[in-house]
Amino acid sequence: MNEIPLILFGLGGVGRSFVRQILDLRDYHADKYDLHLRFLAFCDSRGAVLEPTEGFSDQQVHELLQLKEQGGSLSQHLLGGIQDDLAAIVDIAGQPGTIVVDCTATEATVPALFLALDRNYQVVLANKKPLTMQQEVYDRLTRAGTTAGDPITLSQSRWETTVGAGLPVIATLNRLVASGDEIVRIAGAFSGTLGYVMTGLQEGRAFSEIVQDAYRQGYTEPDPRDDLGGVDVARKALILARGMGWRLDLSDVSVQSLYPEALAERTVD
Amino acid sequence: MNEIPLILFGLGGVGRSFVRQILDLRDYHADKYDLHLRFLAFCDSRGAVLEPTEGFSDQQVHELLQLKEQGGSLSQHLLGGIQDDLAAIVDIAGQPGTIVVDCTATEATVPALFLALDRNYQVVLANKKPLTMQQEVYDRLTRAGTTAGDPITLSQSRWETTVGAGLPVIATLNRLVASGDEIVRIAGAFSGTLGYVMTGLQEGRAFSEIVQDAYRQGYTEPDPRDDLGGVDVARKALILARGMGWRLDLSDVSVQSLYPEALAERTVD
Repeated sequence: MNEIPLILFGLGGVGRSFVRQILDLRDYHADKYDLHLRFLAFCDSRGAVLEPTEGFSDQQVHELLQLKEQGGSLSQHLLGGIQDDLAAIVDIAGQPGTIVVDCTATEATVPALFLALDRNYQVVLANKKPLTMQQEVYDRLTRAGTTAGDPITLSQSRWETTVGAGLPVIATLNRLVASGDEIVRIAGAFSGTLGYVMTGLQEGRAFSEIVQDAYRQGYTEPDPRDDLGGVDVARKALILARGMGWRLDLSDVSVQSLYPEALAERTVD
Repeated sequence: MNEIPLILFGLGGVGRSFVRQILDLRDYHADKYDLHLRFLAFCDSRGAVLEPTEGFSDQQVHELLQLKEQGGSLSQHLLGGIQDDLAAIVDIAGQPGTIVVDCTATEATVPALFLALDRNYQVVLANKKPLTMQQEVYDRLTRAGTTAGDPITLSQSRWETTVGAGLPVIATLNRLVASGDEIVRIAGAFSGTLGYVMTGLQEGRAFSEIVQDAYRQGYTEPDPRDDLGGVDVARKALILARGMGWRLDLSDVSVQSLYPEALAERTVD
């Protein structure tokens, strides 16, 4: 059996879905790929649980998912504790062949991701933030292990779901770039929330009503201005631009907010 | 410089575009990937030219393209000769690390592709025919080098352009299958020619006129019935189905021809 150890940052909606998919596919992975994905550590913003030797049993993982679903923190778990240093978690829990998966939405994971790459672990990001910091952070995250001499080597990192959710956007872009194809234009619906709002407007509904509706249904970020302000879309555009080899920063992406300046200082309530 | 030796079967429209793209991207490949793709042999249906040691100079490759464009055969070339055994070409011209690229539209390349895989060369197909023969041929072509124990190893073969031209259809399908995602439906415009015909019909033009028009513009196969009969689309469907793990043969794909039975026996003229 191919045992692949995983360390997961983030057990919010995305992280839990990821874990649940792995649990659900145990038989499939074993049958088709002789593969067992083994969780060595889980971290959330406050806590962490580690099982660096054997990895967690599926029963334990189910319990952790349940704890998080009920609004708890990993720091409260029997096996858990406070964490204020993700790099230390990687240091303690990591072993050869580990994949570190970042399902958070914070820049705070970067030092831990760098350590993982230094250790020759692989890194997978659903998290856009590290890829939209300074250019040198992007370079180090996406081109680790490659030199001018061998950039066709598979790099140590993947970040497919940062743009276009499950659509093969990044892989396709990388392939086009590697083929020397000229990219003339990238067009798309870059935000589910904005798509929902625009559809509502087309149907003639009031902006305020649509946004409240989207908020109630859980489509928006906790503060809907994060979606409506366009920063999330700007991050996606930056990741695509950098994927094309453009050397830009987030401040180079011009966005127009869907809410008036005057609302920027108000509270969400 | 990473030197990658290539052997190319087929110098028709597709093969020539492929070669021209490589020549055009010499600087890009060198600059970005420290890569030089070196042609060791070209084969067409009748002839072959070999330069198994150094590979052809770009000047020589340009001359070969020109010869083919003017309707000549490689067998007429100064460096060329008759070939009636592609496997022998692979045997003579191949060297470690070779990629054999099949841009023909014939099943006749299969023994040579098998030999290439046996030698641990890589195989790239733009040719649908080998992948739509018996299931065991498909298995051997697409899963060479993999065993039950390590099927996540990159296989030795690629066949992206057999379905959906340049769209990342096969890679996406492979990824969905590997993730254990359930594939509910595959929908698409599977034939440029049929799309052209259908658009013309929607515009109210006569079927006969559209087909003649498509034929004159070079959109159809030399015999337009190859497109209109649906076999080409059936091959694509079979490749997708096999990619999903279905074990089917071409005879299991039901197609409905766009021309009446009575025309099947007529000549093209």
